[in-house]
Amino acid sequence: MRFVHFRYEGHVRLGAIEEEQVIDLNLAYESYLEAAGKLRAKQIAAAFVPPEMIGFLQGGQESLALAKEAVAFAKEKGAAFGKRLVYPLSDVKLEAPVQNPGKMICVGHNYREHILEMKREIPEYPVVFAKFSNTVIGPQDDIPFYPISEQLDYEAEFAFVIGKRARNVSQAEALDYVAGYTIVNDVTYRDIQRRTIQWLQGKTVEGTAPMGPWMVSADELGNPAGLEVVLTVNGEVRQRSNTENLVFSVPFLVEYLSGLMTLEPGDVILTGTPGGVGDAMKPATYLKDGDVVKIEIDRIGSLENKVKRVGG
Amino acid sequence: MRFVHFRYEGHVRLGAIEEEQVIDLNLAYESYLEAAGKLRAKQIAAAFVPPEMIGFLQGGQESLALAKEAVAFAKEKGAAFGKRLVYPLSDVKLEAPVQNPGKMICVGHNYREHILEMKREIPEYPVVFAKFSNTVIGPQDDIPFYPISEQLDYEAEFAFVIGKRARNVSQAEALDYVAGYTIVNDVTYRDIQRRTIQWLQGKTVEGTAPMGPWMVSADELGNPAGLEVVLTVNGEVRQRSNTENLVFSVPFLVEYLSGLMTLEPGDVILTGTPGGVGDAMKPATYLKDGDVVKIEIDRIGSLENKVKRVGG
Repeated sequence: MRFVHFRYEGHVRLGAIEEEQVIDLNLAYESYLEAAGKLRAKQIAAAFVPPEMIGFLQGGQESLALAKEAVAFAKEKGAAFGKRLVYPLSDVKLEAPVQNPGKMICVGHNYREHILEMKREIPEYPVVFAKFSNTVIGPQDDIPFYPISEQLDYEAEFAFVIGKRARNVSQAEALDYVAGYTIVNDVTYRDIQRRTIQWLQGKTVEGTAPMGPWMVSADELGNPAGLEVVLTVNGEVRQRSNTENLVFSVPFLVEYLSGLMTLEPGDVILTGTPGGVGDAMKPATYLKDGDVVKIEIDRIGSLENKVKRVGG
Repeated sequence: MRFVHFRYEGHVRLGAIEEEQVIDLNLAYESYLEAAGKLRAKQIAAAFVPPEMIGFLQGGQESLALAKEAVAFAKEKGAAFGKRLVYPLSDVKLEAPVQNPGKMICVGHNYREHILEMKREIPEYPVVFAKFSNTVIGPQDDIPFYPISEQLDYEAEFAFVIGKRARNVSQAEALDYVAGYTIVNDVTYRDIQRRTIQWLQGKTVEGTAPMGPWMVSADELGNPAGLEVVLTVNGEVRQRSNTENLVFSVPFLVEYLSGLMTLEPGDVILTGTPGGVGDAMKPATYLKDGDVVKIEIDRIGSLENKVKRVGG
């Protein structure tokens, strides 16, 4: 399944995408219960299939199974008890699949061919750094370009979303803890990143994590290795690699990170970016107002955002 | 006022400390409304004085004023409508004043005398890095010492808590956005911090942010400069400085950080640590099982935690 938040008439709700439609999962499950004669349909639906991703992920496989029943019901009915359950995609705005992740953990220097091309050693440990959730924007939002720097840059990232609380999980079991996969553009203000020895301040500027267009569930995507990752700016290819080139794979990262800390449902892990960022071009070529950055990843889809100058 | 979370019979709730007692703010306000004949007392209290710090801070000055009325009521009554409003401190366990901060932003290299003593330049920009909220433990918890490293170290930090959404706030207005002040021990696994060029992984290990013993409100503490900070290990002084030595002051940090990102109520900013960490001693002296680390800061109080080996 493909999960997303969608905005309709000001409300943001969790949805599942089926062909060119989005299904309101919470209302679909509520209606399904109501049709079965449950008087507490609203309360039960709020508990098991809440209208927000992190709460839904906390429900685990149980909530996922109920959501599938709800989708089948909604596809058959379309609407029920005066409630609209299904919307054409063209009627809604898509928002990031995780709105307010508790952690966004980013991995640096993780594409093997790029490390070798830079004549660096393959690292023993992953470089990890943070973004905060103030960075999250959706697949139909513009990337705000604040007048605090002229060095706005892109980073195509294959990302995974934790689905189950994880602590000291082995690589062998790691994929059981992944709810799904999405795309994040780790937008970076390069000069601010380099003001000091720690990157955080150039990485967590407002609006610098476009995410989407949806989360593809782990059961649907299957093996997260072997996916082509391509980033274009105004149609020109800038980054191209494949997740089989990751030095630190998804299972490795779950084991490594859960050995340090508890990972929670809705935590988002960005696996790193291939070579080809604007900062490394000769001459360095940063993003400008109006540029369109598009990231495509096999079996997920494409995330496309326009850069927009804001503020003074 | 001094705000805290307290645990009693398994429930964790927001409280205010008055002498050697803690007042359940939400229940006190609910009882105050009930005494005034309000039939929706429970719902109104949940809206304006919720039993959790971040929600309470979101209520701003309005909620703070209501909390003060509630405290006066509780001190007079002690209990009302069968509900206990006041507990002796000895009956409860104190928990961190912010349980699940959306951001924990840490500043490095911020004590002037220590920078000069290390013969470094006074920096132009603050070094900022992150901890995630999985690190938060309370003032009566032990610091878990996981068998992933032998280099566990302390860092005494004067911390402030954001009280009002802040974006592009000037230094002149900055203190209006601070709800209060607390103490955090930025516990660090040094070798893990240095595995790579980014510190996050050694900083965000589970349980590495003891916080408390409470948050002193900004109106009660007044000027955040000029506070003595002392850290001892088993009674031996290891760190001693004064917040007047901060290169980047609280108002500067609010302006600087809010110029990059939106700060939200409940975000915690750690202002940096003085010289004297165990890693810099000759020879380097790390924390051991059973060590007691105590941080005292003027006009706040003291945060004392014991180190405890856990796991295999």
